[in-house]
Amino acid sequence: MDLWIRERFQDRTELGYKVSDVLHHSKSEFQEVDVVETVALGRMLLLDGMVMTSERDEFIYHEMIAHIPMLAHPNPKTVLVIGGGDGGTIREVLKHPSVERAVLCEIDGEVIEVCKKYLPSIAGKLDDPRVEIEVRDGAAYIAEHPNTFDVILIDSTDPIGPGEKLFTEQFYRNTLAALTENGIMACQSESPVAVPQECLRINKLLRSVFPFVQPYTACIPSYPGGQWTWSFCSKGIKPLENINAAQAAELEKTARYFNREIHKSVFILPNYVKAVFEQQTAGVAG
Amino acid sequence: MDLWIRERFQDRTELGYKVSDVLHHSKSEFQEVDVVETVALGRMLLLDGMVMTSERDEFIYHEMIAHIPMLAHPNPKTVLVIGGGDGGTIREVLKHPSVERAVLCEIDGEVIEVCKKYLPSIAGKLDDPRVEIEVRDGAAYIAEHPNTFDVILIDSTDPIGPGEKLFTEQFYRNTLAALTENGIMACQSESPVAVPQECLRINKLLRSVFPFVQPYTACIPSYPGGQWTWSFCSKGIKPLENINAAQAAELEKTARYFNREIHKSVFILPNYVKAVFEQQTAGVAG
Repeated sequence: MDLWIRERFQDRTELGYKVSDVLHHSKSEFQEVDVVETVALGRMLLLDGMVMTSERDEFIYHEMIAHIPMLAHPNPKTVLVIGGGDGGTIREVLKHPSVERAVLCEIDGEVIEVCKKYLPSIAGKLDDPRVEIEVRDGAAYIAEHPNTFDVILIDSTDPIGPGEKLFTEQFYRNTLAALTENGIMACQSESPVAVPQECLRINKLLRSVFPFVQPYTACIPSYPGGQWTWSFCSKGIKPLENINAAQAAELEKTARYFNREIHKSVFILPNYVKAVFEQQTAGVAG
Repeated sequence: MDLWIRERFQDRTELGYKVSDVLHHSKSEFQEVDVVETVALGRMLLLDGMVMTSERDEFIYHEMIAHIPMLAHPNPKTVLVIGGGDGGTIREVLKHPSVERAVLCEIDGEVIEVCKKYLPSIAGKLDDPRVEIEVRDGAAYIAEHPNTFDVILIDSTDPIGPGEKLFTEQFYRNTLAALTENGIMACQSESPVAVPQECLRINKLLRSVFPFVQPYTACIPSYPGGQWTWSFCSKGIKPLENINAAQAAELEKTARYFNREIHKSVFILPNYVKAVFEQQTAGVAG
């Protein structure tokens, strides 16, 4: 059987993967949850048909969303991950020995259970004693926890469906309020190739709320457009001004994307990506 | 009509584009030549069904293959482009005012004619008086021109079909011989995500021939795996040790990918890409 799964973006482009097995299909309270075995990228998690992560390329996204903000904080003890039910971001957060408490707030408990069962290389650290799992709406949770977290990581789906309220001004204001004094937030902020208008909208919102905002980028094979962005946001701390050099060197030894040079180069944007963030262009596909 | 074109890689992954018009289809002496109008990336050239370039993302590939080697040469006057019948690499080469003679050696004259007609934003500089067009086998041409070119750019298809002989030790030896004293060669060297074994094989061959070899990388939305590589090869000149700073600053003003910081960061490889080149891993999809 020549079985393929295809994800369509904006009715303009498609990414397809040959599937050797369908491991899980269910409809949770919030979305369709699927796990398939692909030939190219190993097991793959899809939510409402959108590729969230795969065994073989997940390290790029998870190392980038976690290590860049974590290394900029002088002593991150308490960390909140919103979304990220696959557990990959939590796994990377726990590689920082200062962490005492890592809260995962994921709206869909079924995603967590499915990932624990089918994607243990990603979700395997969710049972760590430092981890607390809150199965609930991240926007509501964050509003109830002012001045609580040293680092907050918004590991959301795209701004449609359950993830939509994680891309609003009110949510960002509550996130800023939930940070402690030297607090840092990082969020995935979409593709300047596939959805340049979304990139710009998110960046403008973030800049209207956070004193310091700087986008960074990496290339993710399984995401539309390849070139992906995250945004480093803080009350003032800059991402490279006072990094924990010993910890960066330690992470580099086992990381698959991160190294100390990449740590700097992810902030260097190609001209067309800069132009998207500076509202000078509609972008590649815009 | 819901018309799509899909390119399949290794029977494992696919990239698809919605097509609003089919502008050209022919079978040349060497390959199928197609131009389609896509919704996402504008007009797109395909050879034997493989995406070669598109109006909206071609700037990434062409700026990278041309400017990185050109800026490292102290005074590039004579340049050879092998392949590259779409004219995009020549267009970027001509932005360097030292260039007196730019030879395009493309095996398939039909590609040149089709690109002149349908992709004028890419091919439009092929009529420049500094350009000489040789419609013939690049491997044979280069063997006949020892000690002739300051910079040689291998803008080839993948190592199958007409492009195959542009990835051999003999071809690389002839390329080295065709360079002048401070000569620099750059070639596209495939994706460490989609074809890590090919990346490694090409890198080993290059290192067996050229005194200095350094891969560099950028993310190309329309290429499999996104993360693409080129290799900077020379008789000894290193890519960043003596760059033409004034020319780099000038290029940055109008370039869409290149800027002076990117010039350095393209040589910084993520750990998994380093590992592919160091033969430590089979790569993401390998």
